[in-house]
Amino acid sequence: MSSELSTFAGFSTLRRIEASKIFQAVVIAIIILSALTIGAKTYDLPPFVEQGLTVMDNAITVFFLIEILFRFTAAPVKRRFLLDGWNLFDTLVVIGSLIPLDNSEAVLLGRLLRVFRVLRLVSVVPELRFLINSLLKAIPRMGYIALLMFIIFYIYAAMGAMFFSEVDKELWGDVAIAMLTLFRVATFEDWTDVMYATMEQYPLSWLYYLTFIFLTAFVFLNMMIGAILEVMSEEQNAQQAQKAHDERDEIARQLRLVQSKLDELSEKIDR
Amino acid sequence: MSSELSTFAGFSTLRRIEASKIFQAVVIAIIILSALTIGAKTYDLPPFVEQGLTVMDNAITVFFLIEILFRFTAAPVKRRFLLDGWNLFDTLVVIGSLIPLDNSEAVLLGRLLRVFRVLRLVSVVPELRFLINSLLKAIPRMGYIALLMFIIFYIYAAMGAMFFSEVDKELWGDVAIAMLTLFRVATFEDWTDVMYATMEQYPLSWLYYLTFIFLTAFVFLNMMIGAILEVMSEEQNAQQAQKAHDERDEIARQLRLVQSKLDELSEKIDR
Amino acid sequence: MSSELSTFAGFSTLRRIEASKIFQAVVIAIIILSALTIGAKTYDLPPFVEQGLTVMDNAITVFFLIEILFRFTAAPVKRRFLLDGWNLFDTLVVIGSLIPLDNSEAVLLGRLLRVFRVLRLVSVVPELRFLINSLLKAIPRMGYIALLMFIIFYIYAAMGAMFFSEVDKELWGDVAIAMLTLFRVATFEDWTDVMYATMEQYPLSWLYYLTFIFLTAFVFLNMMIGAILEVMSEEQNAQQAQKAHDERDEIARQLRLVQSKLDELSEKIDR
Amino acid sequence: MSSELSTFAGFSTLRRIEASKIFQAVVIAIIILSALTIGAKTYDLPPFVEQGLTVMDNAITVFFLIEILFRFTAAPVKRRFLLDGWNLFDTLVVIGSLIPLDNSEAVLLGRLLRVFRVLRLVSVVPELRFLINSLLKAIPRMGYIALLMFIIFYIYAAMGAMFFSEVDKELWGDVAIAMLTLFRVATFEDWTDVMYATMEQYPLSWLYYLTFIFLTAFVFLNMMIGAILEVMSEEQNAQQAQKAHDERDEIARQLRLVQSKLDELSEKIDR
Repeated sequence: MSSELSTFAGFSTLRRIEASKIFQAVVIAIIILSALTIGAKTYDLPPFVEQGLTVMDNAITVFFLIEILFRFTAAPVKRRFLLDGWNLFDTLVVIGSLIPLDNSEAVLLGRLLRVFRVLRLVSVVPELRFLINSLLKAIPRMGYIALLMFIIFYIYAAMGAMFFSEVDKELWGDVAIAMLTLFRVATFEDWTDVMYATMEQYPLSWLYYLTFIFLTAFVFLNMMIGAILEVMSEEQNAQQAQKAHDERDEIARQLRLVQSKLDELSEKIDR
Repeated sequence: MSSELSTFAGFSTLRRIEASKIFQAVVIAIIILSALTIGAKTYDLPPFVEQGLTVMDNAITVFFLIEILFRFTAAPVKRRFLLDGWNLFDTLVVIGSLIPLDNSEAVLLGRLLRVFRVLRLVSVVPELRFLINSLLKAIPRMGYIALLMFIIFYIYAAMGAMFFSEVDKELWGDVAIAMLTLFRVATFEDWTDVMYATMEQYPLSWLYYLTFIFLTAFVFLNMMIGAILEVMSEEQNAQQAQKAHDERDEIARQLRLVQSKLDELSEKIDR
Repeated sequence: MSSELSTFAGFSTLRRIEASKIFQAVVIAIIILSALTIGAKTYDLPPFVEQGLTVMDNAITVFFLIEILFRFTAAPVKRRFLLDGWNLFDTLVVIGSLIPLDNSEAVLLGRLLRVFRVLRLVSVVPELRFLINSLLKAIPRMGYIALLMFIIFYIYAAMGAMFFSEVDKELWGDVAIAMLTLFRVATFEDWTDVMYATMEQYPLSWLYYLTFIFLTAFVFLNMMIGAILEVMSEEQNAQQAQKAHDERDEIARQLRLVQSKLDELSEKIDR
Repeated sequence: MSSELSTFAGFSTLRRIEASKIFQAVVIAIIILSALTIGAKTYDLPPFVEQGLTVMDNAITVFFLIEILFRFTAAPVKRRFLLDGWNLFDTLVVIGSLIPLDNSEAVLLGRLLRVFRVLRLVSVVPELRFLINSLLKAIPRMGYIALLMFIIFYIYAAMGAMFFSEVDKELWGDVAIAMLTLFRVATFEDWTDVMYATMEQYPLSWLYYLTFIFLTAFVFLNMMIGAILEVMSEEQNAQQAQKAHDERDEIARQLRLVQSKLDELSEKIDR
């Protein structure tokens, strides 16, 4: 039992360390250092600096490994630790960093996985985590609009590939390329060049582009308005409406009291 | 009468099949298959695959024909079936698909009509149908703004064709071409090239472009703000306001009750 | 007095004609015809069509002149007629159309003034007039933001003309040209070309462009949000709040009634 | 004491002058003159005009110096005068203008500092000062979103510099250049040229650009919606809700009065 107690004391020490501001600050500092290391490697550097960066990179990997193990040890319920999306993400990124950076084929993959370490900043800073969670919540609401957009793009791309593929193979070769071209048109990126090219063969093809632009802009605009409204009706007035409802409830309760008192009075007089 | 009953039993079976999830899923799957077929045909394919696609295309046409007939048979009121916009659209698309894909002139038309089959996805998935309906509702509200925009475009296009047609026939040749050029300017697509060209002859023509851009942007912005507000005042607070109104109604009703009770009491005391 | 009466009868007839739907429709039709005439003249036409258009143009001018005189005669208070902005605009446009279209220098000016006839559509259709009025109301609210924007543009333009004028005289020659270039940058129109050119001489000049883009975008965004909010707080909830206020007022009135009745009761019992 | 009084009288005269509309108008006029002088210097001017501008520039500098000293003298609490951000800004700009405009190295710096004199317009016009203050208040709310944006840019830039640096050194040479290129992509500025170049070597790199565009646009959109909502929930309904709350409070108070009266009645009857 004394052993259990000392374990417990050690455990609570672990938790206290994990929750401490200093620990958080150190982890954030190391993540930023890791980000800078990744950025520095994209410059042409003298060999000894490159070597220094590799050493630092390994040190950071080891630190992250220890940190993750520490967090896991400090977690009161181990299963819940692994089921939490952010912890899973952290673990995967750290494991991914263990791929050795030799001159093998895996170099690029290893470096790519190291880039995602920067995302650990999101998982460590609570405000960013909250932000991401609220962004994720916004996704389903856009689901069917995205499907509708995709259908519009697909239909126009199929028509584009059907008619314009002889005009310019590179822009309208098949459905996939045509969809990319239409995305370009939707961002207004040199879209008139695309249009003028097809108008030489099909003089009425401006109709194709204008209807496409109006459709996508119209759907996009309505999506935005819809998103604003949906979020608004959920959050904004909720608190005020609740407060007003509570106050009206209180008034109705008092009124019922008045009525029962009147009933009593009436009975008393009858007696 | 037994014949009538059996017909009725058969009819309700039809309706049950039509409303079943499996039937819906099969139809959606076939529509997606049809969309993929249309997309696949835009690629360069070996002849036997092309033939396979044509066979599949015909099979899909037959399936859609049977499906539409089935739906029609299952509909309780035939007239209402045809008056529904979505059913009419479905029927037209399926009939359009019956145009044979020979090497005749109608090939492109036939293929074009097949593209619209993808839109059947909208008519089959209720959520998309709801979305389109709510988008259609947003159109009239934008009617007069669109007219105003057209007037602005027309006036600027007439002025542009009047002054700049000697500068560049291809951009300012006549009113129609000038309107297309102005739409390009409104999307900020290489609009400075257009401006610099006319500024060589008319050094003050930047005034023309800047006023046009400010006018269209200003009207567009106000349209957007107006749309947000209109939708908001309609939908958003409606429910909450109704609830608050109901609660206040209830309070007023209780108060009238209190008053009538007081009147009774008063009479009793008078007696 | 009989003469006065007959004048009055004639006058009311005039007013009835002016307000009639047919009269409105005829005027709108003539305005649209006028717009089409203006548009048609931008095309290369055979001489006899040109002559026909000129005849029609004169006929329309005469019609507009008669219409304006008719409206003026039908107006009950002549002074108020001229003080109304829309009538003044109509009158000016019609008078401007009287400039003869000879081969003189005034041809272009005359044609330009004829273009503004299309704007008469706005002054005749009440819905468009309402729209323009509400747009005009939105202008003062944007006044100080526009001034702030101008100051930002001016400062950046002065800096641009100071540093970059040797790099590209045509883009940064003086403050005015630099402001036009900055407007181009603000619309994202080939702004990187402008930036890459100056970055060759001033490698840090990307700071100039990025701060400018962020500043203008930030101010613009806040202006838009501000505009949405201001309009909203004015219009949106006003009606509902009024209704709720009225209902609460009614409840308070009933409560005061209850209290006075209770006072009466109390007095009766005391007796 | 009489000396003190006279000082006080002089002091209040100073304050009256400072607050007078004429003084304000003169200062604004001089600031605008200063702005015009700065703008005029960007043009090629004959030497005598240049000299005249330099003289005027010096005169304006002296005026500003006197004005600042005057304001300082008129300020009731000297310490608060210097702690006010706007006064500090004014003082720094005026002191900066004292750098002599010889043919030395400091010429450009001196001219640059003179440009900021235009910003004094903001510190002098109260409406602009209010606008800037409300814009500054909007910054912290965007802090974490900006950080998230920066992380997205950094990760994509690191990936871009990793993979595409061989394709185009000038666009993807290192992390910093890649971030600038990504900002260009985010403004849709010739982004397809950038994409087509990398797609030749990495055919799937369109995924990189599309995910980047969607991510930034999605985060930006949500930021905008969030900003609108946050400002709204703060300001908009606050007044109306307060009014409704007060009215409901009044009703509840009256109800309690009714109840106490009923209690009195009940007691009276019991007696």
